[in-house]
Amino acid sequence: MGEALYGCVEAGGTKFVLGVASGPDRVIATKRIPTTTPAETLGRMRDWFAEHTIAAFGIGSFGPVILDRADPAWGHIADTPKPGWSGADMAGALSGFAAPVGFDTDVNAAAIGEARWGSGQGAASLVYLTVGTGIGGGAAIGGRPVHGARHPEMGHVRVSRHPDDAGLAGICPFHGDCAEGLANGPSIIARHGASLSELPADHPAHMIEAHYLAQLVQNVVAVLSPQVVVMGGGVMATPGLIDRVRGEYARLAAGYFASPADLIRAPGLGDRSGLLGALALAMAAERG
Amino acid sequence: MGEALYGCVEAGGTKFVLGVASGPDRVIATKRIPTTTPAETLGRMRDWFAEHTIAAFGIGSFGPVILDRADPAWGHIADTPKPGWSGADMAGALSGFAAPVGFDTDVNAAAIGEARWGSGQGAASLVYLTVGTGIGGGAAIGGRPVHGARHPEMGHVRVSRHPDDAGLAGICPFHGDCAEGLANGPSIIARHGASLSELPADHPAHMIEAHYLAQLVQNVVAVLSPQVVVMGGGVMATPGLIDRVRGEYARLAAGYFASPADLIRAPGLGDRSGLLGALALAMAAERG
Repeated sequence: MGEALYGCVEAGGTKFVLGVASGPDRVIATKRIPTTTPAETLGRMRDWFAEHTIAAFGIGSFGPVILDRADPAWGHIADTPKPGWSGADMAGALSGFAAPVGFDTDVNAAAIGEARWGSGQGAASLVYLTVGTGIGGGAAIGGRPVHGARHPEMGHVRVSRHPDDAGLAGICPFHGDCAEGLANGPSIIARHGASLSELPADHPAHMIEAHYLAQLVQNVVAVLSPQVVVMGGGVMATPGLIDRVRGEYARLAAGYFASPADLIRAPGLGDRSGLLGALALAMAAERG
Repeated sequence: MGEALYGCVEAGGTKFVLGVASGPDRVIATKRIPTTTPAETLGRMRDWFAEHTIAAFGIGSFGPVILDRADPAWGHIADTPKPGWSGADMAGALSGFAAPVGFDTDVNAAAIGEARWGSGQGAASLVYLTVGTGIGGGAAIGGRPVHGARHPEMGHVRVSRHPDDAGLAGICPFHGDCAEGLANGPSIIARHGASLSELPADHPAHMIEAHYLAQLVQNVVAVLSPQVVVMGGGVMATPGLIDRVRGEYARLAAGYFASPADLIRAPGLGDRSGLLGALALAMAAERG
């Protein structure tokens, strides 16, 4: 008899990444499927896992999601602008396997994954921020994800305008000038006509982006005082950006917070923060 | 033999409030002493408690403070601009009583007090904000205070300028335009020459203040998703202010967050949030 196998789901708005693993270094199979309709996408997910004997599942999902175990809609997507997905029953799609299912936001999953195996090993308090098409953040305190009235929505903290960025309206339809509205990937393209990695290293876009992300980090630090802030996502892959954010955070925070010198870190799990976060959710679900 | 008595300390920058209590409704003695030097103030505190037999102490202190139990400086004030108080050994001042001592920030104490007996009874996630000479915030998740690299410093979240408030530089010496720099009591006086309660109800100062405090609430909600935000402190006692903050928060958040309609509440413990928070710390210290 082999080790227990866990089913891992990183459920994103454009693709689902599935994995079967017995541990963070033992991912024995992975599969990507495009996010189309819930029926098709969740059906393909179910079919793929049916080839394995799974001890427990973990799902880190795009949000908003329902995390309250006392709510009959636990495990579902909440109201979302993504067509067809409001109310989709993510956890229920795996109920036929008679294995426990852990369920959380993609970024809360990434936070517990990074705290357990990645850049924040041993950190009692860690925040994971992703900066890409959207901006989101999750938190792990004592290795457990932070919930609340719903769950963190860190991309929607308010930030102040960079003095060289007076023209464009923030693109968040709810808040305009929140971090997501001023610093996500589409806002960079709306402002400069190109993505950050397509612009020369001396282009002002880099410092404008770093200014907004550093404010996001400052606001997270002021509220939660994490020991570690891991920053991932497509925009953060821009060469030099994480160092610019570190420098701008140091300038803005002005030494006030007791944040460690190595506060801001790249994901230790690389592009597997989400998938291995789902593994951590599965292992926690198995423990019950 | 009577009930166990707890020693409660709300340690502020201008005064210490001491109490002896056997429960939240059974505060049998209180005492106020001015905050002068550590030797004098902590000595008077010790002398006053010596008249009672105390089972456990709780101290909610002005900060920054050292909360890491593994740090030899646990229970001390950290570096503070307040003359003479950097390094003051708050918890150690009570060590002669051979009773356990709970120690945390004043606002973390108030948060657990309000979550246990006040406006947030039953809330799994509660933030307490105080708006007065300074602005601070603490959080209780599952009834326990939130720590981290140090502890929350919520007054120092960044906020954006109100369009009618372009003139004055924010008065926070570290960050200028953070919530504390633009919305604490002294900043109101610097801007308008009077406190909020001295200005007529139709004075624009009220909406400027509400705008900054609503951004503070939005940033707290985005990061932590609390079920309850309790707002206390001298500035919040201004008639009508809490309703203005509620309205402005609803406008700014634009329905995005899953925050309950009664998110923003006045302190259920009135002016005893801090003292009864210290009681909750004492009870937790006794349990060990």
